[in-house]
Amino acid sequence: MKSFVIQNGFGLEHVSLAERPVPVPGPGEALIKLRAASLNSRDLGVVGGFYFPKDKLPLIPVSDGVGEVVALGEQTARLARLRIGDRVNGTFSQRWISGDPTEEWLSGTLGGPLDGMLTEYAVLHEDGLVRVPEHLTDEEAATLPCAGVTAWQALVAAGHIKAGDTVLVQGTGGVSLFAIQFAKMQGAKVIVTSSSDDKLERAKQLGADFGINYRTTPEWDKAALEWTNGRGADHVVDLGGAATLNRSVGAVRFGGRISLIGILSGAAVEDFQLIPVFQKRVRLQGINVGNRDMFEAMNRAIEHIKLRPVIDRVFPFEQSIEALRYLDKGTYFGKICIKF
Amino acid sequence: MKSFVIQNGFGLEHVSLAERPVPVPGPGEALIKLRAASLNSRDLGVVGGFYFPKDKLPLIPVSDGVGEVVALGEQTARLARLRIGDRVNGTFSQRWISGDPTEEWLSGTLGGPLDGMLTEYAVLHEDGLVRVPEHLTDEEAATLPCAGVTAWQALVAAGHIKAGDTVLVQGTGGVSLFAIQFAKMQGAKVIVTSSSDDKLERAKQLGADFGINYRTTPEWDKAALEWTNGRGADHVVDLGGAATLNRSVGAVRFGGRISLIGILSGAAVEDFQLIPVFQKRVRLQGINVGNRDMFEAMNRAIEHIKLRPVIDRVFPFEQSIEALRYLDKGTYFGKICIKF
Amino acid sequence: MKSFVIQNGFGLEHVSLAERPVPVPGPGEALIKLRAASLNSRDLGVVGGFYFPKDKLPLIPVSDGVGEVVALGEQTARLARLRIGDRVNGTFSQRWISGDPTEEWLSGTLGGPLDGMLTEYAVLHEDGLVRVPEHLTDEEAATLPCAGVTAWQALVAAGHIKAGDTVLVQGTGGVSLFAIQFAKMQGAKVIVTSSSDDKLERAKQLGADFGINYRTTPEWDKAALEWTNGRGADHVVDLGGAATLNRSVGAVRFGGRISLIGILSGAAVEDFQLIPVFQKRVRLQGINVGNRDMFEAMNRAIEHIKLRPVIDRVFPFEQSIEALRYLDKGTYFGKICIKF
Amino acid sequence: MKSFVIQNGFGLEHVSLAERPVPVPGPGEALIKLRAASLNSRDLGVVGGFYFPKDKLPLIPVSDGVGEVVALGEQTARLARLRIGDRVNGTFSQRWISGDPTEEWLSGTLGGPLDGMLTEYAVLHEDGLVRVPEHLTDEEAATLPCAGVTAWQALVAAGHIKAGDTVLVQGTGGVSLFAIQFAKMQGAKVIVTSSSDDKLERAKQLGADFGINYRTTPEWDKAALEWTNGRGADHVVDLGGAATLNRSVGAVRFGGRISLIGILSGAAVEDFQLIPVFQKRVRLQGINVGNRDMFEAMNRAIEHIKLRPVIDRVFPFEQSIEALRYLDKGTYFGKICIKF
Repeated sequence: MKSFVIQNGFGLEHVSLAERPVPVPGPGEALIKLRAASLNSRDLGVVGGFYFPKDKLPLIPVSDGVGEVVALGEQTARLARLRIGDRVNGTFSQRWISGDPTEEWLSGTLGGPLDGMLTEYAVLHEDGLVRVPEHLTDEEAATLPCAGVTAWQALVAAGHIKAGDTVLVQGTGGVSLFAIQFAKMQGAKVIVTSSSDDKLERAKQLGADFGINYRTTPEWDKAALEWTNGRGADHVVDLGGAATLNRSVGAVRFGGRISLIGILSGAAVEDFQLIPVFQKRVRLQGINVGNRDMFEAMNRAIEHIKLRPVIDRVFPFEQSIEALRYLDKGTYFGKICIKF
Repeated sequence: MKSFVIQNGFGLEHVSLAERPVPVPGPGEALIKLRAASLNSRDLGVVGGFYFPKDKLPLIPVSDGVGEVVALGEQTARLARLRIGDRVNGTFSQRWISGDPTEEWLSGTLGGPLDGMLTEYAVLHEDGLVRVPEHLTDEEAATLPCAGVTAWQALVAAGHIKAGDTVLVQGTGGVSLFAIQFAKMQGAKVIVTSSSDDKLERAKQLGADFGINYRTTPEWDKAALEWTNGRGADHVVDLGGAATLNRSVGAVRFGGRISLIGILSGAAVEDFQLIPVFQKRVRLQGINVGNRDMFEAMNRAIEHIKLRPVIDRVFPFEQSIEALRYLDKGTYFGKICIKF
Repeated sequence: MKSFVIQNGFGLEHVSLAERPVPVPGPGEALIKLRAASLNSRDLGVVGGFYFPKDKLPLIPVSDGVGEVVALGEQTARLARLRIGDRVNGTFSQRWISGDPTEEWLSGTLGGPLDGMLTEYAVLHEDGLVRVPEHLTDEEAATLPCAGVTAWQALVAAGHIKAGDTVLVQGTGGVSLFAIQFAKMQGAKVIVTSSSDDKLERAKQLGADFGINYRTTPEWDKAALEWTNGRGADHVVDLGGAATLNRSVGAVRFGGRISLIGILSGAAVEDFQLIPVFQKRVRLQGINVGNRDMFEAMNRAIEHIKLRPVIDRVFPFEQSIEALRYLDKGTYFGKICIKF
Repeated sequence: MKSFVIQNGFGLEHVSLAERPVPVPGPGEALIKLRAASLNSRDLGVVGGFYFPKDKLPLIPVSDGVGEVVALGEQTARLARLRIGDRVNGTFSQRWISGDPTEEWLSGTLGGPLDGMLTEYAVLHEDGLVRVPEHLTDEEAATLPCAGVTAWQALVAAGHIKAGDTVLVQGTGGVSLFAIQFAKMQGAKVIVTSSSDDKLERAKQLGADFGINYRTTPEWDKAALEWTNGRGADHVVDLGGAATLNRSVGAVRFGGRISLIGILSGAAVEDFQLIPVFQKRVRLQGINVGNRDMFEAMNRAIEHIKLRPVIDRVFPFEQSIEALRYLDKGTYFGKICIKF
């Protein structure tokens, strides 16, 4: 089979197509024939050597993929979770099924340190697979494991947003677009920020109620307070990190929540102000994708609402390196997918 | 001013129109000129002497009403919660503002033991008043305090339902119709039961996904299991009481929730089976309307979604006794209102 | 190896000692050499044919046991959860690791339908094993999986009791004694009920603050209200079922919780009164032992506090049938154990 | 009556004893004759002009006090919450009774912007008063409203700590000592940090299990990880702020909680690292004292356990300015109190 592999060093120049034997599923495992994959910023970080040391190489990159179950190991499917022919996603944290996470569960993730989805076949444990909503195309289904589950955990499983709440979403990347769609699905109001009026317009077409261009309105926290009549947002989905956290605290209501998810503007906040965090009794929650229970609950919602993930562009498998380069440019709106 | 009063005994025959002086608001209080009221089964129980002893008479009945603030007592509105001219509802439990209830807070309720809304003017403490969504008519607004807040607490504030969940709602009374609307607003699926195919049809027009006629399908719990592919409902809104509780346990999923709200078929379950409650780890939650925080959160949702409560019929104030009789017949679909 | 087996029919007369081959651990599994077991009422129900149909026979009974890991299958212990020589308990629901339960997880339980612990050796999956606090004897350790975890889930994991709360515990069986100990460990006050003044006295020696003899004080709910100055208990651990549930609602505070665990006086409540459940906004929670996360959290507490489970009597393995008969008499105070 | 007042500017030099008329309780209010007060760092901040602008002057400082109800206004005590002669504390946020806070409720606090407790008499609304555990001296009782309730909210009401959990407490100030006592009361293990071996020793006498001198062990987060066998603390009570937050994230377990309470080493974190917050899925919760429900629940615990707050030194009322100076030196262990 063909697999893209990071080897002999980090960086896109060390990613190449390799020929490998099709793996054989052991007890409890399934062999998946991949149909589509989808890219996340994290994949660039893994390729760039940002997350793991060199001794983890060679590594098949990319966390998100969807495929068909084509073979089962011994004892697999004894619980009727799986059948040959099922279309399935692998879960990001392969062993985090339910409940609160442990270090062990959060450490075993696809696309590094475990081999990822940029490969024609993969073997995964049945506990780390979930069935895919039928109405989705393969490319759409491929987008769910990281971006979808992250937004779901932030707003629904951990955030408990409800109809009438106001959610502020930063940017229009993969997690943000899912967050807009999930917030609307639950009856919430959405404020979205972006540096591009064009992207704000497209976000409104997805359902966002109010857009703030943070380049022309750098005090976007005040604009959010004003739009909510001084009350503030019930929930802020913080993806900016360094440049946004203090303003997220400014934009959230007394007693509100901030989901800490991204570090697009840097991973270290230079001047994190604590007093407003106490005075407003803010809760900040680090989010690291989610567990299988969350994934399956999200899928029930996606299936019921017939929600369709937003896709920017689809590359053929052979052009996966181009796809990663395109991701790196950052001009997309919606997910970048790869079709096998 | 004119007020309907229960005096000299219980029963509709002891309800009559009386002339009373317009009350004067004390410190922290407001004078409300009523515009509309709305009826609940509880009002019939209060009139019938089911809830309170005779020494609580005379009593102005009816819990739900909406009116305009026409005068303020000393110190009232110092917190900017109220202004002259605001259109407001009284909260059912006048002193239950937030958090968990106490016996004291659950005992001070409008329409008995406190005087209710079937009166041209009422004085209430500002802490027990909430502003009404603007898009609602007076009659629509009058339906919110009991039926609306009960459904909101059951499904949203206590139930935390989310998109993709399945909610089973019993019957098509006031609480049930709000429950259907709130479940849909949050992206959930709805199963509704009724003895009338016509009412099931109307419930579907409100958004219900599946209807079960419990007369033609007495084992409606099994029908619900089947419709959910054996999984069961995530949340059952039990309004039947005696005749429905065991089947509610049968219809709910492992780990699911049942809101105990009504006793339409009786207040004592003759044969409550405990083993399935353990085996399925079911949670049963008694619901008694709700607090002001829940009311205000519900109003934000109603306002955002532009939800409109379902009204069956509107009576003029003078015909309030006919309205109570009409309620007693039980043939309505939606709320029965009174216009001043 | 020797195992007690239910075969050819239900009832103690169909339990006998059989010779079986020592099982071999497969992938992910461990071979346990049993050192002690402990009995629960459920074991009598399983032996009596109360829980499972005849086609589940032959079956090794008894849910609770402790043993030593003597061999590992392939791939087992790759996560460093286990080592040869560890002293371990099997979890009751072998596959319920964390989070909310599913039907699948609640159905796979030791001592029926899965083979239980009344056997010299057993093979269990490593996911269904937990290490045992070091200060406990084997017999003490054997008591933890059902009675201990049930009390822990009810009061701590689901109940969130806190210092200063009042917990009412019914009876002095295995779950009740753990409930008393856990409540005291968290700084709560304990009311205990029993039909025996002698057992009440012994419960007080364990830390109970107030005892009610329900034979001489049949209105024990009122006695509990009085002892709490009319406020009621924050949490009631209901083990009686049929004869106790209405009084449990009477004894609990407004907004309080009742854990539904046992059916010592019958599994069907003949006259379950719903109105006080609404009016007091009571929450009733069915409890079915618990998951591995709860078990491990409980063990950390037991280890820190150096808590010692209460043991009534220890029988040698060969006298296991006598032990079950002794359990059936119901005169014990504390757990009945079996030593291998 | 005599009152200490900040006037004509900020700073201790602008605090002086003034003669004022005894205030008269209005409707719903009570007149309190103060018996003792207790100091918090916040009082120094208020005196120093750190929290409020000059137009809030003149202001009676100090948030915490205990006194006796000596007169009631009209309508006060209609709910039987209060009687003449009761010994009571004022709550810090006078209007925050229950549930989640609002901006309005968090803004109305004693000792600024509302007049505080350094006065012979004070008038407070009955909703903002709680009865005091009987076994406490006046000075002990005076310490509860800020330091006690803050620690209670952090660990119990918001933190849900349970027996066997590990709590890491920074320093040995008022909140920290209550946190140690509350953690032990609920069966938790306690790690405490300090720059003084002597204070660590005294903290251990209060029940702390492990002490770390952060001067001799600047990498105290690693020491905490080591002491917990690599698992980390379940809950970190962060009082240091600027200099401690990153290490608090380092010391907490995967999925653990950090309560953000203090800013002893500065209010702005210069280099707040976000990646470990995601990767460990940490929750950070700003804590701003607490509501009346929490205060009353805490009092039930203190009363049951017969807990005694730790007092460093008691000054007579006339020497209140000396008491504030002594607080400013920072050499105390336990609360500094003022006796009237």
